[in-house]
Amino acid sequence: MLVSLRVNASRLQLHLDQLARVGALAAGGVCRLAFSAEDKQGRDYIEARMRSLGLAVRIDRIGNILGVRHGTSAGPLVLAGSHVDTVGTGGRFDGSVGVIGALEAIETLNDAGVSTGNPIGVAAFANEEGARFVPDMMGSLVFRGDLRVDDARSRVDRDGMSVGEAIDRAGYAGTDDFADVDVSAYLELHIEQGPILENANTGIGVVEAVQGLTWITFTLTGATAHAGATPIDMRRDAGYVAAAVVQYARTLSHEIEGQRATVGSLSLSPNIVNVVAEHARLTVDLRNPDADAQAMAEQRLHRFVADTAAAERVTVSHTTDVRVPPVRFDPAVVDGVQAAATALGYRSMRMVSGAGHDAQILAGKFPAAMIFVPSRGGISHNVTEFTSTGDLEAGANVLLHSMLALAG
Amino acid sequence: MLVSLRVNASRLQLHLDQLARVGALAAGGVCRLAFSAEDKQGRDYIEARMRSLGLAVRIDRIGNILGVRHGTSAGPLVLAGSHVDTVGTGGRFDGSVGVIGALEAIETLNDAGVSTGNPIGVAAFANEEGARFVPDMMGSLVFRGDLRVDDARSRVDRDGMSVGEAIDRAGYAGTDDFADVDVSAYLELHIEQGPILENANTGIGVVEAVQGLTWITFTLTGATAHAGATPIDMRRDAGYVAAAVVQYARTLSHEIEGQRATVGSLSLSPNIVNVVAEHARLTVDLRNPDADAQAMAEQRLHRFVADTAAAERVTVSHTTDVRVPPVRFDPAVVDGVQAAATALGYRSMRMVSGAGHDAQILAGKFPAAMIFVPSRGGISHNVTEFTSTGDLEAGANVLLHSMLALAG
Repeated sequence: MLVSLRVNASRLQLHLDQLARVGALAAGGVCRLAFSAEDKQGRDYIEARMRSLGLAVRIDRIGNILGVRHGTSAGPLVLAGSHVDTVGTGGRFDGSVGVIGALEAIETLNDAGVSTGNPIGVAAFANEEGARFVPDMMGSLVFRGDLRVDDARSRVDRDGMSVGEAIDRAGYAGTDDFADVDVSAYLELHIEQGPILENANTGIGVVEAVQGLTWITFTLTGATAHAGATPIDMRRDAGYVAAAVVQYARTLSHEIEGQRATVGSLSLSPNIVNVVAEHARLTVDLRNPDADAQAMAEQRLHRFVADTAAAERVTVSHTTDVRVPPVRFDPAVVDGVQAAATALGYRSMRMVSGAGHDAQILAGKFPAAMIFVPSRGGISHNVTEFTSTGDLEAGANVLLHSMLALAG
Repeated sequence: MLVSLRVNASRLQLHLDQLARVGALAAGGVCRLAFSAEDKQGRDYIEARMRSLGLAVRIDRIGNILGVRHGTSAGPLVLAGSHVDTVGTGGRFDGSVGVIGALEAIETLNDAGVSTGNPIGVAAFANEEGARFVPDMMGSLVFRGDLRVDDARSRVDRDGMSVGEAIDRAGYAGTDDFADVDVSAYLELHIEQGPILENANTGIGVVEAVQGLTWITFTLTGATAHAGATPIDMRRDAGYVAAAVVQYARTLSHEIEGQRATVGSLSLSPNIVNVVAEHARLTVDLRNPDADAQAMAEQRLHRFVADTAAAERVTVSHTTDVRVPPVRFDPAVVDGVQAAATALGYRSMRMVSGAGHDAQILAGKFPAAMIFVPSRGGISHNVTEFTSTGDLEAGANVLLHSMLALAG
């Protein structure tokens, strides 16, 4: 009987649509910035749904919410979750799919009268996006014990408001500390936020790892010069060096296995048509699922920038703004996701997450894995973000059966 | 006796310093934007000096000023000149040197009681810089008859004020039309505005030509994508294509003789670190003293942009914002400048002007040439612009003897 168990696609879509009304934007997406009134209203929707499903609801001091369905024994929790906060002009799927999908799995079990051996839980972590308050994945960092609540509460946004003030204003906090919560495995269903599954015409991504991430900002300083009157070999052109770095990022992506190197942000100064740029500032985004390869990419990038700048008599300074090591998910949990997808007859592929997720934080303490579903056009953090009901249904079924297998 | 005639360096420097007080900036340079009160005050200084030297002063409807010293016959004028308007944060030498230098040459002739066969004149042309009202070289265009005064007067600045209103407000206009003025040769002494003379330790540049100038703005459109989640081969990265064009500009400069290709202005959108750029906008500044070579550079650039964009599935649109053909100065006038420099014992070199000047406009109707003096560090259009008294003196002596030879 358990093998034939399936989520209800219409109900899954209905609850996703209802959550999308909270903080809805005229253009189609949502804005539920962390700790805002809309974010609180979104969490209230999740809390109400947890209670209607008979879950025991707990909220901690940063606003993480946990709903627990008791098992036949009192073992550690099989936990599924994600987040319901969004970026400023976010889509309806990022985060929400993981929470609504897990709740749909619970309701499916309730409807079928299925009990599990270990308890299973659903979590919505606070401030995953970090769009207003850094660090991102703040709730899961607090949950894992790597960020103290008082430290998190002291972080301020651009207007000088602290996380603590925002939480208190929204009535976002609970009193729990989850000190007694033990997790045997964490699963997160999420949209891919990239084009790989769509391009491979594949519905399920079995996520083995999250790429490491490094952001390095280079400030290059040459000298202004008249574009007409200054021979090329007398120039100290910061813009020329910056452009060479953009090109080299592409080279790195080809040279090092698994490497993605991107320059999305670049500016010149004085930025005048007939004046050689004195200053250029650009940030290189490096990603690799392998820590050694990522370190090699950083090293080669620094060498290239130093050599190219020196040849142009341009000086370089840099800051490493972000450095997050890659995360390998637990092989057994990953295999469990793969087995569920295969048993359900879905086309699936092993893949690496390019974006950061709560799962990578949880993975530092508990066995974890992720399930990806396709993003149309690879688009995310955008009001046009879209995943079909059929793909959501498949993802929720894989989540359901992965949880069942883990909880026994 | 004429061979030993020399300008007075102290007097030359004194008048340059006095003119630099008009519109003086605290940082050391000057601001005499065209048709402003300061520009008018600068022209008043020149007018007063012309009158004190006994020149017949005439002012036309755009504000060009002409001072004529009669010759022993009534032949065509040997004219020397430049401009006294400046950019917003201009230097003390750009333009002023040519007018003050020519007036110093006249005073030297007056002091020595030297008469010339043909009359000689000094001109200060209105709005050479074009910093507030386009086109630049407006006064010389009107003088040459290529721009009607009413057309020039109708041009507006960013605030919607017209040239006509600015002229009327400043009391800048005269009533002359210079219809009877015939010019046998035009000479312009000017700072180089580049580093070539300084680097060659040479005091006099004998300017044979002015580079042609083309500005092409490319707008590249790809697609936003997540820097972590999007494989390189699925990207349509407008920033990558833009950077390739910046690099190619350098390649063009090496491949085509005399070519200078520069990208000083480039911007990405949305310009976010972890988002592949959807749009890039950059302007390529192309200069070459040879028209065919310049056309080849334009052609190759367009082909490179088209091919590189197509490979990245990025679309291209472009506008040609400026296209000024190169100008070859009159060989006889150029040789006259060379002969004067040599006779005076100055180190000199043939060169091409990288910047635009009134002389290139005059050259379309009259035989013309230019004399360059060094710019310290190649710096111009900047309050730190500097040329030594000795170099100014040498330039004015070359101007004096070139005029004498032409006027007989």
